[in-house]
Amino acid sequence: MTVPDVVTIGETMALLSNPRVGPLRHATSLDLSCAGAESNLAIGLSRLGHTVCWIGRVGADEFGALVRRTLVAEGVDVRSVVVDPDAATGLMVRSRRTDALTRVTYYRSGSAGSRLCADDVDCGVLRTAQILHVTGITPALSASARAAIRYAIEFAAANGVVVSLDINYRQALWPAEQAVLELRELARQADILFATEPEARLIAEGDPAPDSEALAVDLAALGPTQVLLKRGAEGGVACIDGAVQTYTAYPVTQIDPIGAGDAFAAGYLSGLLDGEPVEDRLRRAALAGAFAVSVSGDWEGLPDRAELAMIAAQTSSDEPVVR
Amino acid sequence: MTVPDVVTIGETMALLSNPRVGPLRHATSLDLSCAGAESNLAIGLSRLGHTVCWIGRVGADEFGALVRRTLVAEGVDVRSVVVDPDAATGLMVRSRRTDALTRVTYYRSGSAGSRLCADDVDCGVLRTAQILHVTGITPALSASARAAIRYAIEFAAANGVVVSLDINYRQALWPAEQAVLELRELARQADILFATEPEARLIAEGDPAPDSEALAVDLAALGPTQVLLKRGAEGGVACIDGAVQTYTAYPVTQIDPIGAGDAFAAGYLSGLLDGEPVEDRLRRAALAGAFAVSVSGDWEGLPDRAELAMIAAQTSSDEPVVR
Amino acid sequence: MTVPDVVTIGETMALLSNPRVGPLRHATSLDLSCAGAESNLAIGLSRLGHTVCWIGRVGADEFGALVRRTLVAEGVDVRSVVVDPDAATGLMVRSRRTDALTRVTYYRSGSAGSRLCADDVDCGVLRTAQILHVTGITPALSASARAAIRYAIEFAAANGVVVSLDINYRQALWPAEQAVLELRELARQADILFATEPEARLIAEGDPAPDSEALAVDLAALGPTQVLLKRGAEGGVACIDGAVQTYTAYPVTQIDPIGAGDAFAAGYLSGLLDGEPVEDRLRRAALAGAFAVSVSGDWEGLPDRAELAMIAAQTSSDEPVVR
Amino acid sequence: MTVPDVVTIGETMALLSNPRVGPLRHATSLDLSCAGAESNLAIGLSRLGHTVCWIGRVGADEFGALVRRTLVAEGVDVRSVVVDPDAATGLMVRSRRTDALTRVTYYRSGSAGSRLCADDVDCGVLRTAQILHVTGITPALSASARAAIRYAIEFAAANGVVVSLDINYRQALWPAEQAVLELRELARQADILFATEPEARLIAEGDPAPDSEALAVDLAALGPTQVLLKRGAEGGVACIDGAVQTYTAYPVTQIDPIGAGDAFAAGYLSGLLDGEPVEDRLRRAALAGAFAVSVSGDWEGLPDRAELAMIAAQTSSDEPVVR
Amino acid sequence: MTVPDVVTIGETMALLSNPRVGPLRHATSLDLSCAGAESNLAIGLSRLGHTVCWIGRVGADEFGALVRRTLVAEGVDVRSVVVDPDAATGLMVRSRRTDALTRVTYYRSGSAGSRLCADDVDCGVLRTAQILHVTGITPALSASARAAIRYAIEFAAANGVVVSLDINYRQALWPAEQAVLELRELARQADILFATEPEARLIAEGDPAPDSEALAVDLAALGPTQVLLKRGAEGGVACIDGAVQTYTAYPVTQIDPIGAGDAFAAGYLSGLLDGEPVEDRLRRAALAGAFAVSVSGDWEGLPDRAELAMIAAQTSSDEPVVR
Amino acid sequence: MTVPDVVTIGETMALLSNPRVGPLRHATSLDLSCAGAESNLAIGLSRLGHTVCWIGRVGADEFGALVRRTLVAEGVDVRSVVVDPDAATGLMVRSRRTDALTRVTYYRSGSAGSRLCADDVDCGVLRTAQILHVTGITPALSASARAAIRYAIEFAAANGVVVSLDINYRQALWPAEQAVLELRELARQADILFATEPEARLIAEGDPAPDSEALAVDLAALGPTQVLLKRGAEGGVACIDGAVQTYTAYPVTQIDPIGAGDAFAAGYLSGLLDGEPVEDRLRRAALAGAFAVSVSGDWEGLPDRAELAMIAAQTSSDEPVVR
Repeated sequence: MTVPDVVTIGETMALLSNPRVGPLRHATSLDLSCAGAESNLAIGLSRLGHTVCWIGRVGADEFGALVRRTLVAEGVDVRSVVVDPDAATGLMVRSRRTDALTRVTYYRSGSAGSRLCADDVDCGVLRTAQILHVTGITPALSASARAAIRYAIEFAAANGVVVSLDINYRQALWPAEQAVLELRELARQADILFATEPEARLIAEGDPAPDSEALAVDLAALGPTQVLLKRGAEGGVACIDGAVQTYTAYPVTQIDPIGAGDAFAAGYLSGLLDGEPVEDRLRRAALAGAFAVSVSGDWEGLPDRAELAMIAAQTSSDEPVVR
Repeated sequence: MTVPDVVTIGETMALLSNPRVGPLRHATSLDLSCAGAESNLAIGLSRLGHTVCWIGRVGADEFGALVRRTLVAEGVDVRSVVVDPDAATGLMVRSRRTDALTRVTYYRSGSAGSRLCADDVDCGVLRTAQILHVTGITPALSASARAAIRYAIEFAAANGVVVSLDINYRQALWPAEQAVLELRELARQADILFATEPEARLIAEGDPAPDSEALAVDLAALGPTQVLLKRGAEGGVACIDGAVQTYTAYPVTQIDPIGAGDAFAAGYLSGLLDGEPVEDRLRRAALAGAFAVSVSGDWEGLPDRAELAMIAAQTSSDEPVVR
Repeated sequence: MTVPDVVTIGETMALLSNPRVGPLRHATSLDLSCAGAESNLAIGLSRLGHTVCWIGRVGADEFGALVRRTLVAEGVDVRSVVVDPDAATGLMVRSRRTDALTRVTYYRSGSAGSRLCADDVDCGVLRTAQILHVTGITPALSASARAAIRYAIEFAAANGVVVSLDINYRQALWPAEQAVLELRELARQADILFATEPEARLIAEGDPAPDSEALAVDLAALGPTQVLLKRGAEGGVACIDGAVQTYTAYPVTQIDPIGAGDAFAAGYLSGLLDGEPVEDRLRRAALAGAFAVSVSGDWEGLPDRAELAMIAAQTSSDEPVVR
Repeated sequence: MTVPDVVTIGETMALLSNPRVGPLRHATSLDLSCAGAESNLAIGLSRLGHTVCWIGRVGADEFGALVRRTLVAEGVDVRSVVVDPDAATGLMVRSRRTDALTRVTYYRSGSAGSRLCADDVDCGVLRTAQILHVTGITPALSASARAAIRYAIEFAAANGVVVSLDINYRQALWPAEQAVLELRELARQADILFATEPEARLIAEGDPAPDSEALAVDLAALGPTQVLLKRGAEGGVACIDGAVQTYTAYPVTQIDPIGAGDAFAAGYLSGLLDGEPVEDRLRRAALAGAFAVSVSGDWEGLPDRAELAMIAAQTSSDEPVVR
Repeated sequence: MTVPDVVTIGETMALLSNPRVGPLRHATSLDLSCAGAESNLAIGLSRLGHTVCWIGRVGADEFGALVRRTLVAEGVDVRSVVVDPDAATGLMVRSRRTDALTRVTYYRSGSAGSRLCADDVDCGVLRTAQILHVTGITPALSASARAAIRYAIEFAAANGVVVSLDINYRQALWPAEQAVLELRELARQADILFATEPEARLIAEGDPAPDSEALAVDLAALGPTQVLLKRGAEGGVACIDGAVQTYTAYPVTQIDPIGAGDAFAAGYLSGLLDGEPVEDRLRRAALAGAFAVSVSGDWEGLPDRAELAMIAAQTSSDEPVVR
Repeated sequence: MTVPDVVTIGETMALLSNPRVGPLRHATSLDLSCAGAESNLAIGLSRLGHTVCWIGRVGADEFGALVRRTLVAEGVDVRSVVVDPDAATGLMVRSRRTDALTRVTYYRSGSAGSRLCADDVDCGVLRTAQILHVTGITPALSASARAAIRYAIEFAAANGVVVSLDINYRQALWPAEQAVLELRELARQADILFATEPEARLIAEGDPAPDSEALAVDLAALGPTQVLLKRGAEGGVACIDGAVQTYTAYPVTQIDPIGAGDAFAAGYLSGLLDGEPVEDRLRRAALAGAFAVSVSGDWEGLPDRAELAMIAAQTSSDEPVVR
């Protein structure tokens, strides 16, 4: 079996989404796919040519099969996935009430994915990886999932595996007070930290930062040597080894904003694995984000290597661009 | 508010179904509707011109809104429906692996519908009805739902409301041993009893009946004065006030077998409410079942009064039948 | 301009049909095409290699454009079509309540097509044709349409053009008594007469015929030298120049029964134009009918010459048949 | 039966619309819904929690059933709807030739809806309402419909019911000269008047107003104490009890402009019924309009109470907004 | 047979396109149409009321039938089309990786269309036309196709038929060096020349032009008296009989950029055929281009005469524009 | 890397199929999947739990990516697949003119898959396998593909790998005379031989066999110790180690006949790999074939182990079967 560049752990659910904008109650059919922040990132890294292993639990049902076959099709290593015979694969129902107002309902309480536990962390695989990537969603799922993430981070740290954390605060899943404490603690142990500006304000300590740059520095003060503060279409701020720099987003026609953060993290880690300088990592991250929002779905639009280059060659001439 | 001819109590879920025959994992979209044995029956009765009140719980979510607006659109009285702010509307995922092999997965554990309790039984409405209809699904959902059904039956019996029970044994929901005891006990208290032949064999007492006629008599021995033993496309046997008679199914091109039983019960109760003789009740029941299986969906194909008559006028000539 | 083998006159409407079996009120989209008995026949003849001119009125609207572009695409000559600026193209809404029960609603009262009048009959074209084909639908549309059909038949008869009539009785369009008188009168003037058995019984004079053969003879007694009595899947009876013979239908998997009669007429007239013996005309007619019912839509399944031959070559082996 | 806050009278038709932008003649399927300015408003008010009764005629056909079941599903009181056995439900065919160029064809001449007459005005219900809402479409449909609107307005005025009128000038339905006279006369009798700027210029008397504010005052001079002059995406001007004030539209990604005016009226009347001050009525009206244009369809996007509040909470962060 | 105003020669292929933006490999269905630069132009001219004859080869297969029936439906004269029994109709697979990045794959090597040869040029028809229109695509297909274009141009020139050439450089089809030589040679023989700015730079001789105006003059120096230099959404430059003038594009919501160039050429030639002054030709060309990009598909959005006028009448009022 | 139980070699193409029965020229969209006799078998074996390696060439295009990701998703080993930068992935267009008449058009001449050559045979993998499976399609594709199959068979024979051959005669791909010689020669070298009855008659030597049993013996006389003579819905005849026995097909509602043969071969080889007795191998083969035809698509319906068992448990009761 191939050694994975990256190991990531989390829950991936079946995703049902209303293909039309409007009240879900009027829908007569829903699109079916699957999604999870960590597996989105895994697909992103795989498409960019890295080996990546996703660890999680799915039910012994068709939605679980959908999750596994999708990841396998995308080249993600699923050898450590646990098929839980006693729980169903989680479900996520998504709709857009208006173009700008997305609604999500979860059927994940007690789901196979939420039953993740420390025993599921495949240490044999994890110790061979360069990077462990986790998000702030998993510890919100259950006590055992929280324990799994803590254990994975400790094991990674102890074995020289770089720890990457995307805050991904989901207020629907746990109380803000509990979340802040847990997420801040995880951030302290991370080497690389991804956060949106509201998330950064949530977990940064001390007086409120006057601006994004200061906020990134505040996050770095928690411990991570690489802090990526994301500001959506406005780009963001990076604080890498103490040096602060801003980056801009790539302008595109946005079709679906979901998944941009996972794409950004995938692009950044890809650049890091390739030994690229910070500037190029940020460019790759922004480009991956641009691809992600250009296509409907959480991960469907993620670019491969050839496409990263191709976007630069795109023309506005009358002749269609030929691959 | 109108006085309902029939009150029925149960859980109605959002229904996601694979529009194509084949493995669900290959589906890229699922059809969305809602379904529940009791509300299917309620729709059937409403279309046939009766007033019917459905009691149940839905979540304060879009799927709950879908359930309510569908029932309202079909003329079902939802005044006693409880919107539960603390639980999601249940979900049912259905697919056909082959034309003959249907698979169902439920997301109904802890659902709003399964939190039905005795307090939800609207006695003010129930006491005004002529018939209470329940199924053997509800007691399988939770202890409180079981209590609700028991309470409703007792209240009905005490207030001169006829009790109708459709066995509807769902082996995925509870252990067979528990089911048998509970369902047999409910059957004893019913005036009208609907059962498939396997269900009848499950709950009948004593030595196995040699044939369907004897089996219907065995069921009647439990207490119900009207027993309807359903044998699918082969018709069935009725034991009404001690008299046994067989009936035949109406031959049609079957598109979707689900919902035939609920349609049959609706047709039978409709005839009963109209004071029709047994033979005509059975004919109406079989005709309603024929309509139900002629159309995709659990309840979409149920007939109204005019359509019951129209089917007789259908011709095979070159000229299309004009309404 | 090419000389048409056949001229046909009638109304062609936009056709909206429910793609699913079930109540139309549940539909969220309707399929759009166009249909008319005479233009169905025109398409059938054109596909079989004959030149055919369809005369009718359409509105100066998109549905009228749809009708014209469909006929043009199928090679039908539309030079004599009138675009009526003062009326809308007729509309036909069709659904199947069950597989066997079709419902049709018309929006054709006052339609452009129903405003057909004697002046619309393009005598310059008609006199060059070998056959005029009309149906019993058109005289039911309006007084002016009735006059147009009468005029066309008289003009054809006076100019040595063979008159072909398909009874096509539509009870939704006019009272039975009026229809009988008009249709019987038209039948008297026809050389070729197509009728279903119920239609034949409607217009035949004298005592009811004991069987189909006698009924065909009764029709011939009205005047037509070629009578085609259609009995659907059971085939039918022909009375040609006094000789009675039966024919059988071609067994196929039926998808949509509508249009079989028009296909049959097209196949028969095609054989006649080719100078085929009666037996071969009937075989071609039955084959065209088989193709028509094998495909959804009124005319979409009609065969071309090559396909007529191909059906004979079809195999049931594992290897797909390659054209 | 519940007492309605608002009674509204008009025609609701089946609506067939091309789901793709482009020539309708290329379409192979059309979306099916129903629409009518008055019932759009009724749905808007119902969703906002008000009781509303819609009066109109539909045919005894599936499209009529579609209209009734849609309104019932949306909580609109249809007790006074007349099912006309002698006429078909009207039809509206809509397509967009380009994003900005909408085309509508009506099949409503002689429709059930256009046969509305004074007798259909359910005075028993109307006298209990607080507001009667009518539009300038209905008097254009037929003489009897015109009489119905006049009668309803007179009856309302005589019984202390506030009269609300939306001009809704449809040039396809009647000559401009006739329309001006009739609409101006109706405006004189209205308490509340909604009009677009072109409509206002059409019916205002005297010299052309130099600007929108002056135009609103001119309209108020006709009689109405509440004048709402709508200027689309630019907001508009209100002249309430003599006081002129402007309002702004809510900026959204527009998917379908149709129905914005009906939504605005629903929002305004909702605020009025709630006793809100003018500023809040206008804000609710603008918000309802914003929701309407955010979703495809005339009424599908209309907001409920909870959603009105929710739009304020919408964020642009990476995390989807969770209901 | 009608005398064609314009004759055009080229290859038309079946077009399969991914209806969703994103990787083609995820698609589960593809839209089917047909497309070819020359037949797009032919449809454009036909819709604008001109007679136009398209010459090309298709296979004796369903895709060939699709091409022919589409052109016939659009009123294009296909009398000279060759049905090649020995080769398949070419195929074009198109998808959009992002909104701005189109990908095309051809299955046209050895296709029927690429087997076009000089013998296929129907001189009898060509000599009666006013204009011959060809593109730089055809000579890239094969040696025989190249010969056909050369022969057609020579024949046209010799018979007083105006020669119109759209450069349409397709780098996927042939090497740049070969293309430059061939295209420049063809341009020398053209009376009317259409080129995008990159194409113009490719074939213009001498030092690079400093700006678009100079570039247009450089093209004119090759021989054509009418040069149209297209700059997409920015409009372009015309050099007509030595006079240089710029034109602007018509601003619209763009849905599909493909086909704009063909539409522009159709609009220009239409104006020329009508004897319009240069300014009006350019306006019609820009308007046709605007329609083309407003609708999905290469030619589906092309305007007819009435629509050219209608776009001016479009309003932004609340009332839908009624045809 | 896992050692494969079976290695198979062939061409897999993108598959475009008309979702509706009828002329392909009327289609406006085509379903997209991929198909190839050998990869269908590979998927069938993989689902039944065996390791299987598919060897073939695909283009460096999206259709090639579709082929690879589909096979990867189904667990097929694609390590030896060659991505050919110089040729496109083959294409197959399929439609059903009637329910019983399938048409296929290939775009595979010069395709990547047809450029398969002896060098592509991965001997390192092949020598570790238990079975090599090839079909009579591949040698028809090109001289190099023919050489590849011959080489693979020789290498397998020399290395103790069992050779399995499915005749799969495709008359559209090569002349019958050439095919007979080549296929007969390959059959001589096979250990296991699958053939339909017409294929058997084609390649058997000597006088025509009087019946299927004799025909199977004739095939065995060519060399194979295991001959499977398939007779579609009628079952077939096996001649295994000289013993002749018949088997019956499993009766199911057939949705799509294509792929039944590949499924049969997969089931048979699966049983063989499991060391099952002949009777059980035949039963598994027939069951796999039944699943294949129950679902639309060449391979989508193939069963996994659990499903093979499940079909036996299917009931016809009113209660849906729950997995």
